[in-house]
Amino acid sequence: MADSSPIDDAPPPAAAEANATYDFSAAAGPLPTPVIARIAAACRNWRGCGSALSLPFTSEACRELMRDTRARMCRVLAIPGTHDVLFLQGGASAQFSLVPLNLLGQAGSAAYLISGYWSRRAMEEAGRYCNVRALDWNGASDWEAPWLDERRIAYLHVTSNETADGTQLRELPHARVPLAIDMTSDVFTRHLPWERIGVAYCAMQKAIGVAGLTLVVVRRDLLGRARAGVPCVFDYAAQSTNGSRVNTPPMFALFVAHAVLEWIDASGGLPAVSTALARRSRQLYKVIDSCASAFHADAPSAVRSPTSICFDLRDPHRARQFSDEAQRRGIAGLAGHSKTGGLRAANYIGTSDAAISRLCDLLADFAAPR
Amino acid sequence: MADSSPIDDAPPPAAAEANATYDFSAAAGPLPTPVIARIAAACRNWRGCGSALSLPFTSEACRELMRDTRARMCRVLAIPGTHDVLFLQGGASAQFSLVPLNLLGQAGSAAYLISGYWSRRAMEEAGRYCNVRALDWNGASDWEAPWLDERRIAYLHVTSNETADGTQLRELPHARVPLAIDMTSDVFTRHLPWERIGVAYCAMQKAIGVAGLTLVVVRRDLLGRARAGVPCVFDYAAQSTNGSRVNTPPMFALFVAHAVLEWIDASGGLPAVSTALARRSRQLYKVIDSCASAFHADAPSAVRSPTSICFDLRDPHRARQFSDEAQRRGIAGLAGHSKTGGLRAANYIGTSDAAISRLCDLLADFAAPR
Repeated sequence: MADSSPIDDAPPPAAAEANATYDFSAAAGPLPTPVIARIAAACRNWRGCGSALSLPFTSEACRELMRDTRARMCRVLAIPGTHDVLFLQGGASAQFSLVPLNLLGQAGSAAYLISGYWSRRAMEEAGRYCNVRALDWNGASDWEAPWLDERRIAYLHVTSNETADGTQLRELPHARVPLAIDMTSDVFTRHLPWERIGVAYCAMQKAIGVAGLTLVVVRRDLLGRARAGVPCVFDYAAQSTNGSRVNTPPMFALFVAHAVLEWIDASGGLPAVSTALARRSRQLYKVIDSCASAFHADAPSAVRSPTSICFDLRDPHRARQFSDEAQRRGIAGLAGHSKTGGLRAANYIGTSDAAISRLCDLLADFAAPR
Repeated sequence: MADSSPIDDAPPPAAAEANATYDFSAAAGPLPTPVIARIAAACRNWRGCGSALSLPFTSEACRELMRDTRARMCRVLAIPGTHDVLFLQGGASAQFSLVPLNLLGQAGSAAYLISGYWSRRAMEEAGRYCNVRALDWNGASDWEAPWLDERRIAYLHVTSNETADGTQLRELPHARVPLAIDMTSDVFTRHLPWERIGVAYCAMQKAIGVAGLTLVVVRRDLLGRARAGVPCVFDYAAQSTNGSRVNTPPMFALFVAHAVLEWIDASGGLPAVSTALARRSRQLYKVIDSCASAFHADAPSAVRSPTSICFDLRDPHRARQFSDEAQRRGIAGLAGHSKTGGLRAANYIGTSDAAISRLCDLLADFAAPR
């Protein structure tokens, strides 16, 4: 199910690129320009089905779109047959509750690796449903500890990338219990070790589309443990049995995700987009480090996030000057997370080379001796 | 917050209308053509903020969009200050659980008026959380019955329009307990008696946009009764306190809803769009009734739905001929609900006069003596 015209055959006019504002907010990722063009056209008419904004999920075209989105997701992320792919709603924050509600089963506890702001938020919400055991992220956690046992601990939750702190878990834990991973902000940056993963989830608005669609990839043998009282539409097993169609799926968000997956396929798959993303992040960190008189990035280089580049000004008195200059150059969304402050640039898979280059130029010029 | 150009100033070329396929599926409503044009343009760039597909909910532009969407919704639906407007996710089916989870409080029971397929579905889901008492829809329910008392019955749930059955509750009950109303399929067809309403909810994909956004209008004095264990993002009180921003709101769906509300305002508000909708439904029922040799609509005329026009062929042997002829004329989505069968045409606020006229011509020509 690929449109006949390649999705990347219509580069935008250079003038349009030059005038664009680049938004580096962590809250939502930009879509690749050719994907935007395709979606804008489909809003008017998609394959004679009418507007893509009003696709009835009961139609055969929508069933096929969901099947192909699932198939492409499995291919791009190398998801094995042991796992099922669910398309839900509510974002990652809903999963903070729905992971324990669906996976605790007979175990009364879960473990949470605390690597920053969002892993703490996930643990706090889970603490409403079970005993939670926090593990400090010190690089030397004892995954062989006797208590870390599947009879007592249903899963080990990790936030693979911390957007507020600017850090990424380079190596996912080798534990004796299944991992539960919030991969919202770094989903397409690397291959995932599915044999260790019980559930991986992500809200789609950063890497692959619009808010309102949540990807949940769950190991099939963990299905059917939902606590009594879980709303039917949030019961993984019910949604698995019904192809994520217990309730009306967010079809337009699925349409956008499908268009991004087509673009990833056309761009060379996960190796190509993750390599490009890593290259952009190295470029940006290099400029930050080389402009040490004006900027500093505090995350240790071994755990620096490729998608959430957190840094700050050396001189807080130049904050206004910096933000004015950013605005003048068409750069937006550089404010850090409200809890941590500082500056931050998100570098998601839809972020363009041109956007990163403009930001690098801003940093270099701002740091240059006056 | 209105764009300077009126939203309805660009009628599409007549040729485009003539070639369009009209989809009458109940699952998703069409958007008005000028709204589609505006959204397609905003996908490329919205007010210099970049693509409307990637709006970060943390930006001031998005905060203002949410504020204005809420304000327009209150104006169009005449929602009083006693009620708060929440923008959630999960659709009406999620509310089948979330209404009891949020509103039961100390009461152990809720009453459900059973008017068709979807009210039964709502009651079945609620039965997982409380005692449910079913009321038959016989037009003579005893709203003064001693048991229908707020100390014992938290709310009376009604499905104001039954899409599978083709019926609408013309008069909402006058009961001594607050009403909980699923108004997903007839939200903009009439003024609502807010003084009797505890909560009214609707998924947005029929009347006002794309799936993934759920409108919940709740009486403020009912907030704070949520059962322990309700996921934080589905706790009405938490979302009310936080302006529906506990988790990332589905910004693009909000953007679409806002564009439809602008169109409603520009079209003359609720009186104008509800009158136009009623006129279209009368036109269609009139043709069905006047073609009684070929078609029949079984819902009693006093409760016929203006939005879910259910009918059927007299001669089931002509079903293939009918569907072939519909397809030839660019008419899709006429299959009835899977549980009830027959034929059905949805007539939502975005349904055009041209679409209804084409359908009426099909019915009249099909019924004409050969």
